[in-house]
Order: sequence, then C-alpha cells, then structure tokens
Amino acid sequence: MKITVLTLFKEMYDGFLNSSIIKRIIDKQLVEINIVDIRDYSNDKHRHVDDTPYGGGAGMLMKVDVVHRALLDNKSDSSHILLTSPKAKPLVQKDLERLSKLDDIVIVCGHYEGIDYRIEKYCDEKVSIGDYVLTGGELASMVLIDGILRLLDEGISSASLLEESYNNGLLEYAQYTRPYEYEGDIVPEVLANGNHKEIKRFNLKSSLKETLTYRPDLLENRELSEIEKELLLELQKEKENGN
Amino acid sequence: MKITVLTLFKEMYDGFLNSSIIKRIIDKQLVEINIVDIRDYSNDKHRHVDDTPYGGGAGMLMKVDVVHRALLDNKSDSSHILLTSPKAKPLVQKDLERLSKLDDIVIVCGHYEGIDYRIEKYCDEKVSIGDYVLTGGELASMVLIDGILRLLDEGISSASLLEESYNNGLLEYAQYTRPYEYEGDIVPEVLANGNHKEIKRFNLKSSLKETLTYRPDLLENRELSEIEKELLLELQKEKENGN
Repeated sequence: MKITVLTLFKEMYDGFLNSSIIKRIIDKQLVEINIVDIRDYSNDKHRHVDDTPYGGGAGMLMKVDVVHRALLDNKSDSSHILLTSPKAKPLVQKDLERLSKLDDIVIVCGHYEGIDYRIEKYCDEKVSIGDYVLTGGELASMVLIDGILRLLDEGISSASLLEESYNNGLLEYAQYTRPYEYEGDIVPEVLANGNHKEIKRFNLKSSLKETLTYRPDLLENRELSEIEKELLLELQKEKENGN
Repeated sequence: MKITVLTLFKEMYDGFLNSSIIKRIIDKQLVEINIVDIRDYSNDKHRHVDDTPYGGGAGMLMKVDVVHRALLDNKSDSSHILLTSPKAKPLVQKDLERLSKLDDIVIVCGHYEGIDYRIEKYCDEKVSIGDYVLTGGELASMVLIDGILRLLDEGISSASLLEESYNNGLLEYAQYTRPYEYEGDIVPEVLANGNHKEIKRFNLKSSLKETLTYRPDLLENRELSEIEKELLLELQKEKENGN
C-alpha cells in the first residue's frame, strides 16, 4: 500500500512517522508513506499558497491551482483521493476497514482557514474524523494513517484485533494486570482463579456492563445472542438490587 | 492554561509541538504544555510499564501503579484528568469549548492494547475522538490540544472562528480565491461583483446547500430563521427544476 499526504506542515509528521509502532509497520514494508509539501507547487517567487477570499471574509484560502498541481504530480490513475473536510459524516471503524483494502491513497490536508471550493471536484471522498474544528487536516491524516496501518499490521494479532472495542460492537471488558491488589482494589476473583468458560462469561458480562454504562447507543440496533440477553437480565437485576 | 500529557510515546509529540501554528500559540505563553514519559515511573529495572492480563487474553496491559504514580507526580488539586478511551460519546466542538475554559488539564494516553481498569477511578473524564480504533491515545491527545489551543488563540480572530463550520451549526459555504477561472470553473459572479448584502445572502444559501448535501442531520434539530427557511425553499425548488 502507498499513502501520500499533501500538506503545508510537513514537519508535523516527523514524530508520528518515527514513533515506534508506526515505524515498525513502515519498516516491515507493508506501506510506503510520502509526505509532500504543497508549497513546492507554488508558482510564486514568495511561495504563496493562499490568497484572500472573493466576496470578502476573514482568513486566507488555499489556492486551487497550487493544490491541483501537487495532486497531479503525486497521484496515479489508481489513487483514491481523500480530502480532509468537515463535509462528511464522522469517520467510523468500517471506513478504516474499507480504506485499508486500497492500494494507493492520497490525502489532501485542508487548511485551517479554508480551501478553494473548486478543489473538491479533484477528490474522490471527503473525510472528517469528528464533529469538531482543528487548525488543519494534518492530525486527521495521521488518524487515518494510524487506523489503517494497525489494520495492515500482522504484528497486532487478529485475536487482539477481535477483542478490541467496536470490533464486536461492544466496548471492551474491564481488564486487570499485576499488582493483584492496588490501594484496596483487588482483581475480580474469577479472573485470578476461574476456569476458561467462567472467565469468558464474566468478560462478556463486563463488556455488556461497560457498554450499557458508557455507550448504550451501541446496543440499540444490535442483535443480541441468547447468552447476551441472559447477561443483560442479570445486570438489570443487579442494578435493581443496588449493586 | 497548563496541559500535561502522560504517554509512553513522548517522541510522537516533537513534530506536532514544533509545527508553526501550535508553536506560535505556545510562544505567546497562552499555554504551557508538558509531555511526560510514563516509563519514568516504572519501579522495574527493565522499565516495564505493562504486564499480561489476569484471566488470559491477547496483548499487554498498562499497569495501574505505574500510571497512578505518574499522575500523582504531575497533577495538582485543580487538575481535570482526562483518560483517552473508547468509553465515551465521541468528542464534539462543545466539549472543546468547555475544556478550553479550564486552567489545568492532564491527559492520560491509553495504551493500544489496554490499560488496567483500576486507573479509571483516578480520572475525571473519559474522552474519545471518534468511533474508530487507533494504536494509542497519543493522536487523541493531540486532537484535544489542537482543538483547545485554537480556541485560546487570539490570533485566530473571533470573526474567523464564527464563520467556521459547526460554530453556527451549519457547514461552511463554498469559498473561492484567485485565479478567477480555473480549468473552466469560474468564481460565482455575485462574489466577484456583488454588494455586501447580496454576498451575505449568497453565502448563507451556499452554507445551507452544503449542509443539506453532506450533513442533513445537522439541520434536524435546528431552529431556522425566516431567511434560512426562505433559502431552503429556494434550494428545494431549484432541485425540483434540476439545478
């Protein structure tokens, strides 16, 4: 897989690309990542990449011609071109799964003040990482890369992937490691002494409890298995009894 | 304001904190940012910070005692302690506005494989930047810092903040800058030649059109002004006439 990022803030990627987890995946040659400075495509001797908006208004806009030149020079016929933008439903895990199956992705990072509208027609898809405003699209591009790379990486075992939040539509169960006792809190007995079947049941119940507490919306359109229904009833009774 | 991040991947922050926009805000002394390596709080000669989960399962968990020691050494009585976690409703702009008014924030970055459940009771709030899985909480902490810093920064004028997406509950209108014509696409005439009142109306209509197209959900629970109702009717008629 190849991922190319077009940005005005190339320096922002240094720490990210050299961080141990990301670097390990890149070193495995599972992915080639190129960070391209849009400013290199300015035709202006002052390397300007933005200009004031027609019709007035605050801020500067990234110029369509400069961004388009950067795009033409760095994309191939098979590139899927993403534009970071608030004009999209917030990213979800299914989007990352879909994107992780592509061969060639180009991410155009929007500018914190805006980008000429005409660039949109040169992009295949707009991506937003959430309903909040950031100074630019750089962190959004890193979120995309990080989320895609972990799906590509065989180093994160499929067992581990399966157990993680969202993959089965429930939040992860409460997990514990040593010390057995910390400031009066002890590890649930079943985890320290239980058998595999008991532990499995306990963890599923914990998963349902966390989901009920923090993200009940995740349970709304979910088809429950028999054991899940049984455990939810147990949780309800415990709640009524004040546990 | 003071923001402290507890992380296992301190090196990831270099590029981010030195990027021009973030650095400018830090240089204005609007905020003090400290990145703390959790590993410095390991009592182990091998500097271990994680261990296998009780009850079995894939992956390693961050240890509660190590993280808690890091927390105790870096928080004050007035610190608001955030834990990056999937156990929260996805972050929205209102959360960033609320957080930007605090004096002292500590962000504990979760580990990509998990963290001992008992750490949760030492944190005031769990934060998720979206319904997707990342390798760790580091990018989430950067999203928080970036989103908060831009709200603190007087360099981003309040006019600019107001015009941006989400601040008035609609997506931003289509914006254009030079060149006037690019590959056959020209800037709408009203923006190049119109008067202030016409431009304002045109931009609001564009804003409504973008929102209808990409995020109709944002219009659902919104109280519309008279002019907004009128413009939405116009857009509907144009659609029926195939424009």
